[in-house]
Amino acid sequence: MKTEGISHHLLYGRRPVYEALRAGRRVFKRLVLAEGADMTAPPVREIVERAKARSVRVGMARRDWLDQQVHGANHQGVLLEAGPYPYATLEDVLALAAERSEPPFLLLLDLIQDVQNVGTLLRTAEAVGVHGVVLQERRSAEITPAVVNASSGAVEHLQVARVTNLVQAMKTLKQAEVWLAGLDLGADAVRYDQADLRGALGLVVGSEGEGLRRLVRETCDFIIGLPMRGHVESLNAAVAGSIALYAAWQARGFEG
Amino acid sequence: MKTEGISHHLLYGRRPVYEALRAGRRVFKRLVLAEGADMTAPPVREIVERAKARSVRVGMARRDWLDQQVHGANHQGVLLEAGPYPYATLEDVLALAAERSEPPFLLLLDLIQDVQNVGTLLRTAEAVGVHGVVLQERRSAEITPAVVNASSGAVEHLQVARVTNLVQAMKTLKQAEVWLAGLDLGADAVRYDQADLRGALGLVVGSEGEGLRRLVRETCDFIIGLPMRGHVESLNAAVAGSIALYAAWQARGFEG
Repeated sequence: MKTEGISHHLLYGRRPVYEALRAGRRVFKRLVLAEGADMTAPPVREIVERAKARSVRVGMARRDWLDQQVHGANHQGVLLEAGPYPYATLEDVLALAAERSEPPFLLLLDLIQDVQNVGTLLRTAEAVGVHGVVLQERRSAEITPAVVNASSGAVEHLQVARVTNLVQAMKTLKQAEVWLAGLDLGADAVRYDQADLRGALGLVVGSEGEGLRRLVRETCDFIIGLPMRGHVESLNAAVAGSIALYAAWQARGFEG
Repeated sequence: MKTEGISHHLLYGRRPVYEALRAGRRVFKRLVLAEGADMTAPPVREIVERAKARSVRVGMARRDWLDQQVHGANHQGVLLEAGPYPYATLEDVLALAAERSEPPFLLLLDLIQDVQNVGTLLRTAEAVGVHGVVLQERRSAEITPAVVNASSGAVEHLQVARVTNLVQAMKTLKQAEVWLAGLDLGADAVRYDQADLRGALGLVVGSEGEGLRRLVRETCDFIIGLPMRGHVESLNAAVAGSIALYAAWQARGFEG
């Protein structure tokens, strides 16, 4: 959530605030705890310790003030006023892979807007150790405090690159010899466990209703699909993307 | 949502209402569309056709009346007044497996209360064709209209058994020669891709913060875990359960 005209973000929730402080990649302005919060309870105490270690001011406010600041979101008595999310570039992402001597492993999101799905997917991406995530600037979710919250703070540790044009970024990745696997339905989709997901890989995931845009789909090197046998024939987008991320990580021997 | 003293449920949302009518397992009282809804738009038209085929009354109401009925949930202009969710029994679940000549494949939920997580997990369970899901009556999510919605209607096609005591149900399943795999953290956890998930299997999933209760965990035949290598070391409960469900289905050759 941006306050009009001021470029700061109000992070909320114990785990997200803790992870933001632990990652230490933003400018932090102030930690605000709800009056009456038990400062000796381990999660709150750890947050306060992290804040103090980073010389962040710690204040108290009435719980209803906190409610108002985050428009009723579940803040768990903890707000952190912080600078904007530190986006990375595509070059940063490839550099991290090179630094670790690992073939690049990326997640690309094509116009996913559902905050919960984006957050959940980024949380899985962090768990499997992708080198970065690529989002398109327009018509996609930004990394708002709600996304940070939905990712349980994982996004604070991730490199997320916002690009003007996703197809252009895909072409750049292809030049860097990254293979692009689109997750989608269709007769041309290879079953995810039969596709070769080893090596330099970018997994491209679309939105739940729409799938991948035509040009994004065509720019992929191949399409993978998840089998289904029920009546409903659909999965939650974050679940489908997470299953594909684990399959790709498994193909890499659960290493980089 | 139950109206006080009347045992009916208000299902809402296009896909959930469509799937409920298609599954046809409840008593249906009335379909209510928001005034101004485009009756010729395919999703709405298909719902109306399904309702008429089942001789369900179709009415119209103001959109704000619909808003009020579902307390602001995203109804997409469609409400369906229906009888209670038709729970199955453990015997029904085992009978379905026998009828299909397949080794039983079940999902057991240990005190998961988050509506979104339960719905998402049930949607995946339906996609991989489990014979049934087992929930404990107390301290677990019920199959409310919100769960139906979160499952995108998938739960209308699933057999869900509510049991008084989950551990007791687990013992009954063991007597039926079903192996119980708990999904949890811990040094005793076998990596999910190295465990033997073929044959008669019940996958037991706990809540996101708490994991499995001690007695539930001890009643499992073995514990499986998902590797993680990020900083945050946690996955969304529905994602973790869904990855395990797909691994189990893969072990069965993507068949029953």
